[in-house]
Amino acid sequence: MNLKPLDDRIVVRPAEAETQTASGLVIPDSAKEKPQQGEVLAVGPGKRSETTGELIEVGINVGDIVMYSKYGGTEVSSGGEDLLVLNSRDVLAIVG
Amino acid sequence: MNLKPLDDRIVVRPAEAETQTASGLVIPDSAKEKPQQGEVLAVGPGKRSETTGELIEVGINVGDIVMYSKYGGTEVSSGGEDLLVLNSRDVLAIVG
Amino acid sequence: MNLKPLDDRIVVRPAEAETQTASGLVIPDSAKEKPQQGEVLAVGPGKRSETTGELIEVGINVGDIVMYSKYGGTEVSSGGEDLLVLNSRDVLAIVG
Amino acid sequence: MNLKPLDDRIVVRPAEAETQTASGLVIPDSAKEKPQQGEVLAVGPGKRSETTGELIEVGINVGDIVMYSKYGGTEVSSGGEDLLVLNSRDVLAIVG
Amino acid sequence: MNLKPLDDRIVVRPAEAETQTASGLVIPDSAKEKPQQGEVLAVGPGKRSETTGELIEVGINVGDIVMYSKYGGTEVSSGGEDLLVLNSRDVLAIVG
Amino acid sequence: MNLKPLDDRIVVRPAEAETQTASGLVIPDSAKEKPQQGEVLAVGPGKRSETTGELIEVGINVGDIVMYSKYGGTEVSSGGEDLLVLNSRDVLAIVG
Amino acid sequence: MNLKPLDDRIVVRPAEAETQTASGLVIPDSAKEKPQQGEVLAVGPGKRSETTGELIEVGINVGDIVMYSKYGGTEVSSGGEDLLVLNSRDVLAIVG
Repeated sequence: MNLKPLDDRIVVRPAEAETQTASGLVIPDSAKEKPQQGEVLAVGPGKRSETTGELIEVGINVGDIVMYSKYGGTEVSSGGEDLLVLNSRDVLAIVG
Repeated sequence: MNLKPLDDRIVVRPAEAETQTASGLVIPDSAKEKPQQGEVLAVGPGKRSETTGELIEVGINVGDIVMYSKYGGTEVSSGGEDLLVLNSRDVLAIVG
Repeated sequence: MNLKPLDDRIVVRPAEAETQTASGLVIPDSAKEKPQQGEVLAVGPGKRSETTGELIEVGINVGDIVMYSKYGGTEVSSGGEDLLVLNSRDVLAIVG
Repeated sequence: MNLKPLDDRIVVRPAEAETQTASGLVIPDSAKEKPQQGEVLAVGPGKRSETTGELIEVGINVGDIVMYSKYGGTEVSSGGEDLLVLNSRDVLAIVG
Repeated sequence: MNLKPLDDRIVVRPAEAETQTASGLVIPDSAKEKPQQGEVLAVGPGKRSETTGELIEVGINVGDIVMYSKYGGTEVSSGGEDLLVLNSRDVLAIVG
Repeated sequence: MNLKPLDDRIVVRPAEAETQTASGLVIPDSAKEKPQQGEVLAVGPGKRSETTGELIEVGINVGDIVMYSKYGGTEVSSGGEDLLVLNSRDVLAIVG
Repeated sequence: MNLKPLDDRIVVRPAEAETQTASGLVIPDSAKEKPQQGEVLAVGPGKRSETTGELIEVGINVGDIVMYSKYGGTEVSSGGEDLLVLNSRDVLAIVG
């Protein structure tokens, strides 16, 4: 993966959506929800303060599994993979 | 529960909605109001000041019972439980 | 009343709406205006400055009678009472 | 008048709208324009700076006649009088 | 003229709209454009900084001829004259 | 040209739109695009910082050819010429 | 290319959109997606802090290949080429 996100953006590899429910029922493709979790592949340098120009660090690290809001981010493809560029403020929580 | 909320977000376990009115009438499921109270399971590190980048603490603690605005937050599921990730500004008051 | 409002919010017990006009005419229930005055039961610690994180005091005290904008606030019930959680900026004036 | 406005709000007693045009024609009640001038009865302590929390004074004094934007403010009644609570920023000019 | 504008507002006496085109054609009243120029009659003390509360001067002086955006300002009448109270930010340029 | 723009505004003389395409076809008047380039005739003193009141310089000089967003600015006429008053933030780039 | 972007804008030469899918199918012109990548030809001096007026540097360099949001920017033509003027905040990531 060769993307370097800017500002406080991160690059995420979305986890596959579950294709089977707990009770073993297979969900047909069109009903699959978009994944809400993913692995962080890259983290931007942080946003610059509008007042002082200093970098404000992103509190997320490469390798973190993040839970993010379902409609956030921009889908990009890089090296044949469908990835997501997210603002760090669209990340709800780190899992684990 | 293995969610670490970011910024000034909190993770809340919503209280069960009352299924019986004061007069003993059972409310059918579809008429149940969404719960407005819940227990705080995790609290983010705080929001960073847009000027200085310093953390601004969240005035809520794990274990608090909070009353929150009915339509706030994002529902997530973690460990088989339906939880809510809320911005601390959607919390109206601490109960207790 | 066991609610501790956050930020610059306050908890108010709305005054009963007048049920009789000056001329002695009884107003039927559905025409009653929502009360615009109430007694302050609790006051939050203040809002934190977005720049420095310091608390900015609320200029309202427990016991004050406040006049507030008719559509402001969120109705909550606590201890069998219908109360209102208001942002202090929805308070127009202190009466008294 | 027993209202103490908060922040940078003021309490104004609206001047009576003219009920007669220059040419002597009496305007029926429903066509009367809302008054745009009034006397200042009370002035709030000022708004608190969002950065430092310090009070920023209101440049208006009790007794001033102010011209205000026609649709600004909230009508309140106090002591049998119809008054107006206005944000000081809705005051266009001081007359006099 | 006895109006003292507040903040960074100014009072302007609009110039008469041209009632004749370059080719000598008289424009009927309803087609007249609203004037876009006027003379400055009064200038407010300036806006207060939201951070420090200090006055930020208005770069316009009494007597200036200003060109302003066609739909800006509030029409007021004072001493039998139709005047305009404008925010200084609605002034595009000083003519002269 | 006798216009002194305020704040960070500039006065621009729009370049004539091309009336002939590369292939020699004359475009009828109604299809002409609005020009997107022009010469800077005057530059305001700069915007005042909302915090400190200090002037923040405009990075554009009289004589620059600027490319500006097609729907930006306000058309004014001065000395028989159709000019444009633009916010400096509507200038995309300096040409040359 | 003779464009000097202002503020934190950049000039980008969009990469050609793929005209052939992975499976060798030629996509007719009207179905081609707008390119989302391009080479940076020029970078503005940075945005001025609204507080201090100091320049805040753009973290992008001439020669970088950038991935940008599909609907961002303004198309300009310069020297016969179709280029894009983008705000640096519309750049999602640097490729490579």
